[in-house]
Amino acid sequence: MVSFIGYQCSVCGANYSPNEAIYTCPKDGGNLDVQIDIEKIKDQYQPEDIKNSSIFSIWRYLPLLPIKEPSYKETPFWAVGWTPVYSPEVLKNELNLEKLWIKDDGRNPTASFKDRASAVVVARAKEIGAEIIVTASTGNAGAALAGMAAAANHRAVIFAPKTAPSAKVAQLLVFGAQVFLVDGNYDQAFDLSVQASNEFRWYCRNTGYNPFTAEGKKTAAFEIWEQVIEPNKLDKPLNIFISVGDGNIISGIHKGFKDLFALDWLKEMPRIFGIQAEGSAAIANAFDDASEEIKAVSADTLADSISVNLPRDGLRALRAATQTGGRYIKVSDQAILNAIARLGIEGIFAEPAASTAYAGLEKAVEEGFIQKDDPVLVLITGSGLKDVKAAAMAVREATVIEPNLDALKKALNK
Amino acid sequence: MVSFIGYQCSVCGANYSPNEAIYTCPKDGGNLDVQIDIEKIKDQYQPEDIKNSSIFSIWRYLPLLPIKEPSYKETPFWAVGWTPVYSPEVLKNELNLEKLWIKDDGRNPTASFKDRASAVVVARAKEIGAEIIVTASTGNAGAALAGMAAAANHRAVIFAPKTAPSAKVAQLLVFGAQVFLVDGNYDQAFDLSVQASNEFRWYCRNTGYNPFTAEGKKTAAFEIWEQVIEPNKLDKPLNIFISVGDGNIISGIHKGFKDLFALDWLKEMPRIFGIQAEGSAAIANAFDDASEEIKAVSADTLADSISVNLPRDGLRALRAATQTGGRYIKVSDQAILNAIARLGIEGIFAEPAASTAYAGLEKAVEEGFIQKDDPVLVLITGSGLKDVKAAAMAVREATVIEPNLDALKKALNK
Repeated sequence: MVSFIGYQCSVCGANYSPNEAIYTCPKDGGNLDVQIDIEKIKDQYQPEDIKNSSIFSIWRYLPLLPIKEPSYKETPFWAVGWTPVYSPEVLKNELNLEKLWIKDDGRNPTASFKDRASAVVVARAKEIGAEIIVTASTGNAGAALAGMAAAANHRAVIFAPKTAPSAKVAQLLVFGAQVFLVDGNYDQAFDLSVQASNEFRWYCRNTGYNPFTAEGKKTAAFEIWEQVIEPNKLDKPLNIFISVGDGNIISGIHKGFKDLFALDWLKEMPRIFGIQAEGSAAIANAFDDASEEIKAVSADTLADSISVNLPRDGLRALRAATQTGGRYIKVSDQAILNAIARLGIEGIFAEPAASTAYAGLEKAVEEGFIQKDDPVLVLITGSGLKDVKAAAMAVREATVIEPNLDALKKALNK
Repeated sequence: MVSFIGYQCSVCGANYSPNEAIYTCPKDGGNLDVQIDIEKIKDQYQPEDIKNSSIFSIWRYLPLLPIKEPSYKETPFWAVGWTPVYSPEVLKNELNLEKLWIKDDGRNPTASFKDRASAVVVARAKEIGAEIIVTASTGNAGAALAGMAAAANHRAVIFAPKTAPSAKVAQLLVFGAQVFLVDGNYDQAFDLSVQASNEFRWYCRNTGYNPFTAEGKKTAAFEIWEQVIEPNKLDKPLNIFISVGDGNIISGIHKGFKDLFALDWLKEMPRIFGIQAEGSAAIANAFDDASEEIKAVSADTLADSISVNLPRDGLRALRAATQTGGRYIKVSDQAILNAIARLGIEGIFAEPAASTAYAGLEKAVEEGFIQKDDPVLVLITGSGLKDVKAAAMAVREATVIEPNLDALKKALNK
């Protein structure tokens, strides 16, 4: 069975059948929520059907996804998700928290959370017969699309700003995507990809534009439900910390929990905290103003994956916090770098945009938004190997010595 | 139960009890094979006990490992191994092979195969009460030790050559290891780490020196047995392609299959192919000479993880091929780069030392060592994100364009 029944606009509430819309709301351009047939799923599935699945990837949640069962099973496409959850003792003690989990989505096939969205979009492209998929990306979404398209033998075209880290661009090219580096910023790359999509009838994967990205991203909520909420029988709501750029990850995860809640498989919604870099805080600004109007900023942060002037999924991202009793928090670039080193001592290597979520937790604890007995999960959205320059800024340089024991003893003061 | 019963020298055959040796053979310096109590394991376990395990990491093979059950279960330490196996259709067709699998060990917690060895060595260090673990590493082994030690709250000291890629060094530092960059080559870093280990009583993890590294590495053989050999009921022996530097990965995997064979859980040994870069081919040279004498070379290859003058585990590495009906193959740096791009089109991103194994398969097919109906598995030992400079050399540069549709059309010739 396929549970996809249509779209609803997140701004005006208008409903559309699957064939009446592709990207955003035809009336007001609002982000569309994909609607799945909750009653039908409820009739046909129990939580145990999911929990007993022998598939350890996002595809265990196929009954809750708006797509048919894809092929390409013995490929990286089929290996997305079901990322590990750690319970880091040292950090738990440092923060004086009783229950802390870290979910490492840097362990995905192309080393970022974005594989979830790209895999679902590639599956959708196959279904609707789109031969080329296009996206704009600061790097992770592009690498994810390039990797997932490669795994499924599909063509991908990527627009990235010329300033994207070379590690991310090399990955796009290795996956065989056609890559255009746009002499401009992410927003210009985004606009150009949409124009190209319209002009050449390419299927556009853009974050906060294609409604199916959030459907891929919601699988992280399902995993948190299965890996943390259910087994730990929490007596307080889980507090989830997510870094926010365009806002599509946080809104996708919110959507996942809403689906579970609607199915009555989840009794209490988690509280969702959105963390933004101070230099790219459009949604956090709106939160602080208690407004739903998201105003563009001139983004400036070293966390390139969340450096965005005008978030493409701002409204839903804002509501992910306001509707769940969470909040938005801003953190400095220095706090983001420090957080890389804190996560590192537990053996977790995060890129700046990912460590941002942990920096937000540190601030939330410090400011009293999180209490000792509040259970917390921090989502790591990308691997530190994606941006080693930033990692090098987060730590002191290594000691260079001559290759002999005397030099070593001197360096060790022994 | 713990199955560890002693060591046997791979050169002179002398046996030692667990307390009579630590690193290499006290008599001749030969590499020691860890011996496990095959009869006891056979008595107490059936293959099904392993196959029904709910642990999806190397720790599902604990009964076959020479260590006690470690703690640190909700950490990256516990998440090592059980890496995905893909069956890439396009490459299968390109090579005209009926059965081709690629096992991606770049999907390990620190993005390389070396996590397997480091996790087992850290567990061993805990058991014997060693407070500091030291290693020399071109990068991956160091990152793996640093990451696994961090996850288990253990101290690590790493010696790396000053020329190691910055991505790899940043990862060591982020994991909180004490890092010394040695102004010399890998071999000098190796010697210094051994001296430091003796001088300061640090536990030395060095590849081809500490016998427990191969015990960690043998888990990949167990996974290949469980993921490929058993479910596919192969009627010909599996041909496994492994890139070789120091020789410890190939000898560890050989050891794993020997353990399974001794247990009678494996009916037919796979054929093991060792692939070396032409510029670092000490073991392949010995193979070509039909000699067991491994002569040092002056290593020069862009595949830094397998760039070694005198392999530290050369004899066992050679025998992994000669004793299984496999062989050694040399490939050029250009073939190694080309292989990165071939793997990429299936969504698999490999570092040069990892793509070397695939380049070896291409040559083996070309030279007739592999026939159409020979089942083949290629092991990818590290992620391409570890060395993006090399990846960039493997592909054409991206096209830079102005952020408008006209510029795009021009670039597309539309």
